[in-house]
Amino acid sequence: MLEISSISRSELKLAEWTRSIQRSSLQAMLAQASSPDILSFALGLPAPELFPREELAIAAGKVLARGGEVLQYSPSFQPLKMQIVDLMAQRGILCHEKQIFLTMGAQQGMSLLVRLLLDVNSQVILDELAYTGFRQVIEPFRPRILSARVDAETGIDVDAIERLLDSGTRPVFIYIISDGSNPTGLSLGIEKRVRLVELARRYRVPIIEDDVYGFLYYDKSLPPMRAHDDEWILYVGSFSKILAPGLRVGWVIVPEHLVSKLSIVKEASDIDTSNFSQRVISAYLDSGHLDSHLDNLRKQYKSRRDAMVYSLQKHFPKGAKWVTPTSGVFVWVELEDDIDTIAALKHAIEAEQIVFIPGHAFAIDENARARRCMRLNFSYTSLERIEDGISRLGNVVKAMSS
Amino acid sequence: MLEISSISRSELKLAEWTRSIQRSSLQAMLAQASSPDILSFALGLPAPELFPREELAIAAGKVLARGGEVLQYSPSFQPLKMQIVDLMAQRGILCHEKQIFLTMGAQQGMSLLVRLLLDVNSQVILDELAYTGFRQVIEPFRPRILSARVDAETGIDVDAIERLLDSGTRPVFIYIISDGSNPTGLSLGIEKRVRLVELARRYRVPIIEDDVYGFLYYDKSLPPMRAHDDEWILYVGSFSKILAPGLRVGWVIVPEHLVSKLSIVKEASDIDTSNFSQRVISAYLDSGHLDSHLDNLRKQYKSRRDAMVYSLQKHFPKGAKWVTPTSGVFVWVELEDDIDTIAALKHAIEAEQIVFIPGHAFAIDENARARRCMRLNFSYTSLERIEDGISRLGNVVKAMSS
Repeated sequence: MLEISSISRSELKLAEWTRSIQRSSLQAMLAQASSPDILSFALGLPAPELFPREELAIAAGKVLARGGEVLQYSPSFQPLKMQIVDLMAQRGILCHEKQIFLTMGAQQGMSLLVRLLLDVNSQVILDELAYTGFRQVIEPFRPRILSARVDAETGIDVDAIERLLDSGTRPVFIYIISDGSNPTGLSLGIEKRVRLVELARRYRVPIIEDDVYGFLYYDKSLPPMRAHDDEWILYVGSFSKILAPGLRVGWVIVPEHLVSKLSIVKEASDIDTSNFSQRVISAYLDSGHLDSHLDNLRKQYKSRRDAMVYSLQKHFPKGAKWVTPTSGVFVWVELEDDIDTIAALKHAIEAEQIVFIPGHAFAIDENARARRCMRLNFSYTSLERIEDGISRLGNVVKAMSS
Repeated sequence: MLEISSISRSELKLAEWTRSIQRSSLQAMLAQASSPDILSFALGLPAPELFPREELAIAAGKVLARGGEVLQYSPSFQPLKMQIVDLMAQRGILCHEKQIFLTMGAQQGMSLLVRLLLDVNSQVILDELAYTGFRQVIEPFRPRILSARVDAETGIDVDAIERLLDSGTRPVFIYIISDGSNPTGLSLGIEKRVRLVELARRYRVPIIEDDVYGFLYYDKSLPPMRAHDDEWILYVGSFSKILAPGLRVGWVIVPEHLVSKLSIVKEASDIDTSNFSQRVISAYLDSGHLDSHLDNLRKQYKSRRDAMVYSLQKHFPKGAKWVTPTSGVFVWVELEDDIDTIAALKHAIEAEQIVFIPGHAFAIDENARARRCMRLNFSYTSLERIEDGISRLGNVVKAMSS
């Protein structure tokens, strides 16, 4: 190495929006609590023991035997798009492969859509309790977030959205999870879905419909909003929750004219979606295993959901309330007035090595109600540990309320 | 499906910057010419027949046998970071795994760095002939691009950059490929590298050093600028050109304090880099095959480079000029005054079904010289087809100059 004259150094100057980047005390607390001994109800992880590893290994072997082009740069793999068309039909969505764009998971689908739609300092509508990852996507654009009230039983308040739009507000988009919402676990009824579609059309405001939990239904299931409209509903799907997140493959369904624009934003971001992952998933789907895998996932997660709800009834204080989720991987629990769930998390970590996410983390505005709520994940933890963990968490909460 | 009242429709409104998104006539011409019969010197693709498919299949099998966590969400895989530290030592770079951040390929590395650094309407410095993918990355920020002259033999004009900085210009960053530059194929000499590092330090202007071709050297090789400075040189590397692009794994090496910031931008973009791909690559590296694979790649690509240069000498008109590249996958050919290579491409497609990229595509400003240049890739095409193709392309060019 050459000698280079030493000159006093100063830190790099970063883009302005990065000043808002900082770890919250909650994130710090959760990071601290990421040891293997911790019992986690915190994240929305799928159960790793249920990944179809053997079938995926067979699929990977088949794919790699086919020739070098499976490891080359490649745009979206056409056969996988057609398989997604079939998969979407199971959710009641009729679409064409030309409306499908493959992404590195749902998060990238949302990120690309937002970059295509959002100008700096615009307005958007979100649930007052919203997926934090979506807020991360929009943050660099510093939008004005108009939060829509969430009814504790039925989800987003469509009347409130209609009033906003009716008064002349024109957000760039509305972001909604119709099934198994994150964080509330709620699914929208048919009337709300239809009214939202009508509002999107009437006021020409697109809805980004995040359907990553749509295949994980445990009782009844309704078609997503995209089944009712193919222009104003921009649909986001993913293999992460139904197959494996470590492959990083998802998709969006949009009007055809947006696909070429998405591909330009995507190319600038990371050229293309992993050709290998796309082909492994396509070979797996070809083998016909997905339906039985999904049946099994729904069965296993339903048992876990039931165990969690049963344990909550048994071990949580009488005043605690929740709605049993019909889809997804979360139960949203509201405690009595005097309990702050950030404090409860601190106690739970210290006394019981248990983590969850306090409701406050999802609140767009100051929200007194969210402060006494907690989001509990049931997909990641075994039946036995769910019952044990909720019982211990119940003790923490009871100790605080007494 | 429900009936929903039909209302007149209008197109979605997109973000302002997307108005600049449009396919150039060149892109349209190249897309048209993407049939398998076409002989392509256009893109910078690796040779698919050289991908180590068998070893990767073994690696994939091993990884999937290990347990479900290999398919779970996961931050950067620690063992792979440590393997990259070792790999970087081969390029003369001493770094710490805490300075490494894994990405979905080099393109994502650049995209994340740019999003961290660039504000709207800032200034950046690029070669007057620059990688189009990098321009796609910065386009949404509408920067003022200050182009630095490129010397036909020695690459970017460091004096010109010094004059710019000396006159008070403070770009947000300078983007440079030190080895086997895209599109010119040139590698910088040691003096230019050292002077650029000194300028970066003196004027506190970071350099994004894109080193995706660094391991593909055919004669001598110099350490990248990052070997001389660990604060102002932001290094971008990738497994795409040395292993397989279809796995989508690359890395950046940056000051440690930037890693947590990158991880936040990354999380918002696509949560994390494919855990499966990371682990497959790590298992492949563990098996110890990379060194001999790289030796073989360099040997094969060197033969292809030599065949291309030999054929150019034999079949191109006397006035044609090029510098034999010591690294990378491109030869940059300058023709005589009267030849427009966009017209030459049109003839080459029609008469010979051969494609390449005309120099104009890479020019930042109007650049008369670039109009008579062409970028020819030699990594993707077999020896036999290179000789045949260059001979036929020579005929096209000769017909135009006579």
